[in-house]
Amino acid sequence: MSDTLFTGIAQLVSPAQGLQRGRAMRTLTQINDAALLVREGFVAWAGPRSEAPQAAQTHDLGGVAVVPGLLDPHTHAVWAGDRLADFEARISGVPYEDILARGGGIRSTMRATAAADVDALVALARPRLAALRASGATTVEVKSGYGLDFDAEVRMLRAVQRLQAEFSLVPTLLIHVPPQEGRSEYVRAVCEELIPQVVREGLATAVDVFCEKEAFTVEETRAIFGAAKAHGLHTKLHADQFHAIGGTELACGLGALSVDHLEASGEAQIRALAASGTVATLLPGVTLHLGLPAAPGRALIDAGAAVAVGTDLNPGSSPLFSTQLALALAVRLCGLTPAEALCAATVNAAHALGLQGRGALVAGQRADFLALHSADWRDLAYTLGTSPVREVWQGGRQP
Amino acid sequence: MSDTLFTGIAQLVSPAQGLQRGRAMRTLTQINDAALLVREGFVAWAGPRSEAPQAAQTHDLGGVAVVPGLLDPHTHAVWAGDRLADFEARISGVPYEDILARGGGIRSTMRATAAADVDALVALARPRLAALRASGATTVEVKSGYGLDFDAEVRMLRAVQRLQAEFSLVPTLLIHVPPQEGRSEYVRAVCEELIPQVVREGLATAVDVFCEKEAFTVEETRAIFGAAKAHGLHTKLHADQFHAIGGTELACGLGALSVDHLEASGEAQIRALAASGTVATLLPGVTLHLGLPAAPGRALIDAGAAVAVGTDLNPGSSPLFSTQLALALAVRLCGLTPAEALCAATVNAAHALGLQGRGALVAGQRADFLALHSADWRDLAYTLGTSPVREVWQGGRQP
Ligand SMILES: [Zn+2]
Ligand SMILES: [Zn+2]
Repeated sequence: MSDTLFTGIAQLVSPAQGLQRGRAMRTLTQINDAALLVREGFVAWAGPRSEAPQAAQTHDLGGVAVVPGLLDPHTHAVWAGDRLADFEARISGVPYEDILARGGGIRSTMRATAAADVDALVALARPRLAALRASGATTVEVKSGYGLDFDAEVRMLRAVQRLQAEFSLVPTLLIHVPPQEGRSEYVRAVCEELIPQVVREGLATAVDVFCEKEAFTVEETRAIFGAAKAHGLHTKLHADQFHAIGGTELACGLGALSVDHLEASGEAQIRALAASGTVATLLPGVTLHLGLPAAPGRALIDAGAAVAVGTDLNPGSSPLFSTQLALALAVRLCGLTPAEALCAATVNAAHALGLQGRGALVAGQRADFLALHSADWRDLAYTLGTSPVREVWQGGRQP
Repeated sequence: MSDTLFTGIAQLVSPAQGLQRGRAMRTLTQINDAALLVREGFVAWAGPRSEAPQAAQTHDLGGVAVVPGLLDPHTHAVWAGDRLADFEARISGVPYEDILARGGGIRSTMRATAAADVDALVALARPRLAALRASGATTVEVKSGYGLDFDAEVRMLRAVQRLQAEFSLVPTLLIHVPPQEGRSEYVRAVCEELIPQVVREGLATAVDVFCEKEAFTVEETRAIFGAAKAHGLHTKLHADQFHAIGGTELACGLGALSVDHLEASGEAQIRALAASGTVATLLPGVTLHLGLPAAPGRALIDAGAAVAVGTDLNPGSSPLFSTQLALALAVRLCGLTPAEALCAATVNAAHALGLQGRGALVAGQRADFLALHSADWRDLAYTLGTSPVREVWQGGRQP
């Protein structure tokens, strides 16, 4: 009998299982004075305390609100080097071209990351992932993408694989920065060498591409997505960050799991997302850190799209080490209600990762949940600058 | 011999002592491989490790950056009740008038606060002050202002007085919300009864007024400032939050310590602040939480003003429980450089509180300092969503 009945739950609050679209994102189930039965790491039952089944053990949470563990569907948590000089220069008014000319910008992160071995990458990423988990993230996606060459990309993914012993991670192969010459050979090698190797070694479950004027074109993205699908990998896309060049429409048409960023999305992109099964992932940390426009979260939901939220944790555009704060920023910067933001950071983020069994507190889901400091779950979206999360439970245990 | 020499300081970074104005806010002293001698709670010496004097004990900080403890010059950390329903309603599109009509808004906080006794107010404020301190604040201002009557105002200040046993606090009497009728009698009673009582009982060192279209007029502010000065209290002002009605110019002319908010300040107010000895205090948490314009921090500094930054911690307009995040938001939302933001949150915030002996790591100042996780002090301004502060030292001890 490994059943544990969690009691002392002032509010048990959860979205329904599965992807939630449009206004359905506002519908949460709230049970006051609740209990949660956990069996072998999974939710066996959730309901009012007065109707709770017997269990071998009980664990009293002391009268707080309980919500599902968050899923962070978009991070670049593995990197070496830092971007502090870039940050200071940018804020002081130095143009980005000059920062690049000084050796700064993304290529400095790529050089430092390519120079680091797997041990070093693991050691650097560990406290970042610990911070995300402490903020409430019980599942975190981590991308490659700072490798200067394929060996470095594979080293990044091996670092993620090593960290899976400590954290619940979802690895993504990100095709991020085109080479300065030989683009078509590079894309061909991604399709014919890198993706097959990553699949052979089980290093990623999805392929992501940065589709943007200064990065990969729509046609290059189509080729890479084709190879990914041929090898049984999910696809997702960085699109519409600065320019809406067609990546969102392509990804929706090809059944990508998610399109992420969307700061430059307009009516056409919103319509494409609303008409598709593809999740629209907001990354409000970028808006805050770079002072760029926010993605149209409100308009996406009102149009009927399924919206998720993530930190985009990375050193250049989003040094945001809290999935809870990403959720709270989605409310302030993208116009989501607290309920929509909870849905975005749980079941919809799970769908954006291709995971069915997480994100809701209903029977059969992994027992990932957060005990807050407060008896009111809305503190999760309200609180800025300190953690409203008292305890993180993952698979029924405190990790 | 109670001397302790702190070593293992990769960078010791501090502004110069005293108020810093305009571009001088960018000038920090940085000593690499430094040491800090603390004697009886004060800095006795700071300099390169190789030149450090002998000391009875040494304490190795392990190779991290050290900066002065932050001062948070503007909080409303004592309140009862919550504003979660207001928050949810506002984000869901309910107009503020309707929220007020439902019994929400500031008057709900006033009712709950007036109904709480001193013990309850102390218990509610304690974890908020602990969060601010964990974020790096070694001195925190706390205002009254939610009292429905003078007794409740005095109870709020008594709660602050009680909390001074645990935290380093600066209490301010805030004249916040005019009564719905009998304004002139109210202002007269503030001047003739409340201020004298507060002075007699040593409950505050400054008087603050909310000068705004919907709150107190410039003439009412002038009368209250007159009484404050006659009783030897400092003055400060909430001004230009929604409308620049002349409060800033009045406060600068009367030698107030600070004018706070400034979201609606224009050229005239910036000129007045730049020409005065009054500190301009930015509260970027309000900008983030309410989605209002940011105060013109960059323009104020460029014009030669002295700028400070605070959380404005309060339940309605800034649920921001981190002075570090206020500093980091001043960079993103108000255009301060990391160096200016450090200056704003240390020596300039000290000046805004009328304190000369805090804010810089130079001989004679109270030994309030932060050991960061990182060896680069700029992580203090860069990091979002997790604490870059590993240890807080206050008067030479870990509180
Ligand atoms: Zn990204
Ligand atoms: Zn205030």
